Amino acid sequence: MAVIKRMPRYYRHLAELLRNDVDRISSKELSGKIGFTASQIRQDFNNFGGFGQQGYGYNVRELFNETGKILGLDKSYKTVIVGAGNIGQAIANYTRFDKFGFDLQAIFDANPKLIGLKIRDVEIRDIDTLDAFMEENAVDIGIICVPTTVAQATVDRLVKSGVKGIWNFAPMDITVPKDVAMESVHLSDSLLTLVYLMNDKAKEREKKEKKSTSK
Amino acid sequence: MAVIKRMPRYYRHLAELLRNDVDRISSKELSGKIGFTASQIRQDFNNFGGFGQQGYGYNVRELFNETGKILGLDKSYKTVIVGAGNIGQAIANYTRFDKFGFDLQAIFDANPKLIGLKIRDVEIRDIDTLDAFMEENAVDIGIICVPTTVAQATVDRLVKSGVKGIWNFAPMDITVPKDVAMESVHLSDSLLTLVYLMNDKAKEREKKEKKSTSK
Repeated sequence: MAVIKRMPRYYRHLAELLRNDVDRISSKELSGKIGFTASQIRQDFNNFGGFGQQGYGYNVRELFNETGKILGLDKSYKTVIVGAGNIGQAIANYTRFDKFGFDLQAIFDANPKLIGLKIRDVEIRDIDTLDAFMEENAVDIGIICVPTTVAQATVDRLVKSGVKGIWNFAPMDITVPKDVAMESVHLSDSLLTLVYLMNDKAKEREKKEKKSTSK
Repeated sequence: MAVIKRMPRYYRHLAELLRNDVDRISSKELSGKIGFTASQIRQDFNNFGGFGQQGYGYNVRELFNETGKILGLDKSYKTVIVGAGNIGQAIANYTRFDKFGFDLQAIFDANPKLIGLKIRDVEIRDIDTLDAFMEENAVDIGIICVPTTVAQATVDRLVKSGVKGIWNFAPMDITVPKDVAMESVHLSDSLLTLVYLMNDKAKEREKKEKKSTSK
């Protein structure tokens, strides 16, 4: 697992330790929780600036703050959601992201029934006003919750207006320029992976049962 | 990328080709769309049973059906959602999954304001009735949309009742027995990864700008 995938996991586990009032933790204890080896953890934290003290463990608060800084959570990020369907609404309602410093500026949709409604004080605006809004507001991240057919075009509009991060929920592969970051959450890929795994395990069970009955 | 991660992508891209009335496609054309090498694609499809005909390309419909079978989509799966908050409701409303053969049986929540409501004809039931429901209904997949604090306990209940697949949206690491399949969608990990990537690209830009001004 690459460091970029380990970082959010460190952050999440350290946050949980703080919630449980754990002040200090050893690399071995953390390894038991997070699943990385203790030596990987020591190496990572050493690279972050070395917070451990031999035989004393890590200061959870310090490590949490430093991990947050490395992830870029010492800044705040202005976001817009495009597409106020099921997923768009769920993301807009997800208060967890506020705490990280994500600041939802506006939601856009093409559906006249949705335009003008508010989700947690953030207005759903007409998609036709997107470009004008983006011109007037410095938005960092665009969250793409539109149908597949318009996803790439929507991303292109956001990128053109200066957005530097795309969080894509459309079930398709989007392309962005090199200097724009993108992360996709492909829900159906994940569900299909689960089914594949389930069937794989069912086959294994069948094999085992055959073996034990043929004995 | 492992075959298990490639399969859902094949399925998704083949579905899109069918929607666009594409009957045949070469490994080279598909490579351009999906991003795997043409030789990887030929090797995979050969393993699936060899649908290609030299110089003629693949039959998209055949390949789509076969990929679906390999993924296990020739069967249907009974699912329950536990947790009818934002994410639970969004998943319940997501009609896309019906088409794959996922059959939502019930939604459970502890909130009295939600219990008794329906999402697309599926009732939100009292979480206290979960075990009884599971005993009477053969459920294949449990979709976990409950808060972190009760996620593992909820999974344990479902596994005990015979569920063989867990689709986890709780932002924590869940453990399941070996013969149970699990896939997690960690939304906040994905968002934090995006921010990390954005900051990485910003640093690269700054470096380049410094270089060009120092010339």
